[in-house]
Amino acid sequence: MANARQLKKFSGEFEMRRGGFLTDPTLAYETWGELNKRRDNAVLIFTGLSPSAHATSSPADPAPGWWEEIVGPSRPIDTREYFVICVNSLGSCYGSTGPASIDPLTGDIYRLNFPVLTLDDVATGAKVVIDALGIDTLYALVGPSMGGMTALSFAVQYPGIARSLMLISTASRSQPYAIALRSLQREIIRRDPEWKNGEYEPDAGPMDGMRLARKLGMITYRSGKEWKQRFGRERIAGERATGDPFAIDFEVEAYLEHHAQKFTGEFDANCYLYLSRASDLFDLAEHGGTVTGALKKIVTDRILVIGVVSDFLFTIEQQRELAADFEAAGKSASLIELDSMQGHDSFLVDMDRFRPVLSRFFAGDWAAVSAKN
Amino acid sequence: MANARQLKKFSGEFEMRRGGFLTDPTLAYETWGELNKRRDNAVLIFTGLSPSAHATSSPADPAPGWWEEIVGPSRPIDTREYFVICVNSLGSCYGSTGPASIDPLTGDIYRLNFPVLTLDDVATGAKVVIDALGIDTLYALVGPSMGGMTALSFAVQYPGIARSLMLISTASRSQPYAIALRSLQREIIRRDPEWKNGEYEPDAGPMDGMRLARKLGMITYRSGKEWKQRFGRERIAGERATGDPFAIDFEVEAYLEHHAQKFTGEFDANCYLYLSRASDLFDLAEHGGTVTGALKKIVTDRILVIGVVSDFLFTIEQQRELAADFEAAGKSASLIELDSMQGHDSFLVDMDRFRPVLSRFFAGDWAAVSAKN
Repeated sequence: MANARQLKKFSGEFEMRRGGFLTDPTLAYETWGELNKRRDNAVLIFTGLSPSAHATSSPADPAPGWWEEIVGPSRPIDTREYFVICVNSLGSCYGSTGPASIDPLTGDIYRLNFPVLTLDDVATGAKVVIDALGIDTLYALVGPSMGGMTALSFAVQYPGIARSLMLISTASRSQPYAIALRSLQREIIRRDPEWKNGEYEPDAGPMDGMRLARKLGMITYRSGKEWKQRFGRERIAGERATGDPFAIDFEVEAYLEHHAQKFTGEFDANCYLYLSRASDLFDLAEHGGTVTGALKKIVTDRILVIGVVSDFLFTIEQQRELAADFEAAGKSASLIELDSMQGHDSFLVDMDRFRPVLSRFFAGDWAAVSAKN
Repeated sequence: MANARQLKKFSGEFEMRRGGFLTDPTLAYETWGELNKRRDNAVLIFTGLSPSAHATSSPADPAPGWWEEIVGPSRPIDTREYFVICVNSLGSCYGSTGPASIDPLTGDIYRLNFPVLTLDDVATGAKVVIDALGIDTLYALVGPSMGGMTALSFAVQYPGIARSLMLISTASRSQPYAIALRSLQREIIRRDPEWKNGEYEPDAGPMDGMRLARKLGMITYRSGKEWKQRFGRERIAGERATGDPFAIDFEVEAYLEHHAQKFTGEFDANCYLYLSRASDLFDLAEHGGTVTGALKKIVTDRILVIGVVSDFLFTIEQQRELAADFEAAGKSASLIELDSMQGHDSFLVDMDRFRPVLSRFFAGDWAAVSAKN
């Protein structure tokens, strides 16, 4: 049975790691496939910063998901074999409680009264969901980008649940270059007069700020090599607007504008700010003195770290470091370095390279997965 | 004799490459050292986007220059030996005519009525200066970053004047990744309500936009590796401002804020927009059908291309391509790849690596310069 979005209401006070609590928060999630009788075929997927729980289409919700080519029948994460769960992050705006939700204690939208969000809270939110589903073993825990950080937090907080761990283009702690970029994105949003210190109306908000922050995001998610091949110095078709010396001129500018406009209005600005800062705050070392100390707490059979050489937001060096830290913690981890040219976004677009790696992993072909590729 | 800033007024209509003209424009420049009797020891330096002509200090202007450690007595570009000229780019705001200047035809500030600016115009502006100085041979033409693009334009437009050419972290044509970043910087500035479609008063302007654009610039001028070593996840000293969940928290954020504030108010926003777009528009191929076709026009004895492996704005691949294009054009060019970790800004800060290369070049030690380093 394929399901559209479902909601799990957590009853009571959900305590936040940095203080404060949420009253009766909701966690939105989707599932695909069936839990088997041994209840051991569940796969939990954490998302990057902006996607919803809609990882792939289903009869109940035929819209393409954010990982459409990876999750589904006969796809690398095969929903005929696995019971796949994707959770909308706590703090997001696609069904889970976040800064755009109403605080039942006050009847007002949380906005900046939402407590400080961490990825530890996001991981705990997912634990609420799998508990409600009666799942105490995961075949695999999968996380790309911010979702990989969340997966690391989950694996450290709840050791032994996930029998395997797949971490894609992620980090054990945020580094200053990524922090600087996210900090600038947040400031671009906050400097938009329409942000109104977070007090914008639900149907309004800092559209311009979100659009520009998204452009910066897109630039940092891709690579110069890709764009050189794709756009070169092509100009847009048709005449430039007259009288505006700074109108869009190059194809690459039109591409950014098109994609940034699609994003604007979809994602709530305050939710974006909270999740962005949660990414900055993430440091696995808080769970064990050092990253290695924290990784020692993880109990799992298989660990796979996948990195992309052209990713400069979550660099290949960070993936190597993460794999090495696992080894230092006494855990065997395989590292796969992919030569994709789409930078950080490769896991969303370079299916030719990602599909076979994920297929081998989910077919249980461990020898092939860990072989030097 | 060391001189403080001097001004050369071009009398008449200065025709701009993309149409329009400037009436009696001024070119600001500084010189250091003495022109020798053979008038063959002049070195012309073009700047990056934002510096003034003040490359180094002098008795007449003791403020440190933007290339203080490179230019001066006993420094790599030795002003006891060379007559060094640095020109403030046409379109800038440090003495040369630009969008912040008054149009003598109207008595009003040019603002967006300034004609489209290209780096070809900037190169031609420098030609006005050296003509006025009675110089028809340059020992060397030197350009880092945008200055390298300007130097290429100069060498193609005025072949045979420069006997040697030093191009640092530059490009023969702007690539889409750099265009995207500069386009976003411009949009950040233009979206600041204080920009007022360019009609801000001389003592006002889009301070916030300039500050944020500068932060983006700084991020793209440096490297993640450097910042990881330099800042790690250090937090700022002292308490964070209460009640602001997005106040500055990490050292890297404080660093960006400090440097961006220094820049804001110094550089005119409209001038920044024009020079930024001039960089995007730069394509040497316009001078010869292809880049190689244009490079064939250059007449010079020595060509040195210097690149930095950690530069992702003007990548090492672009420097290799430029050197290869020179070879394809039948010109012998040496390529030096430096392992600096400060990214695009390395030529301003990694003196340990740049000083010896420039010293050998200006000592005429060609064998050492072109030896594989």
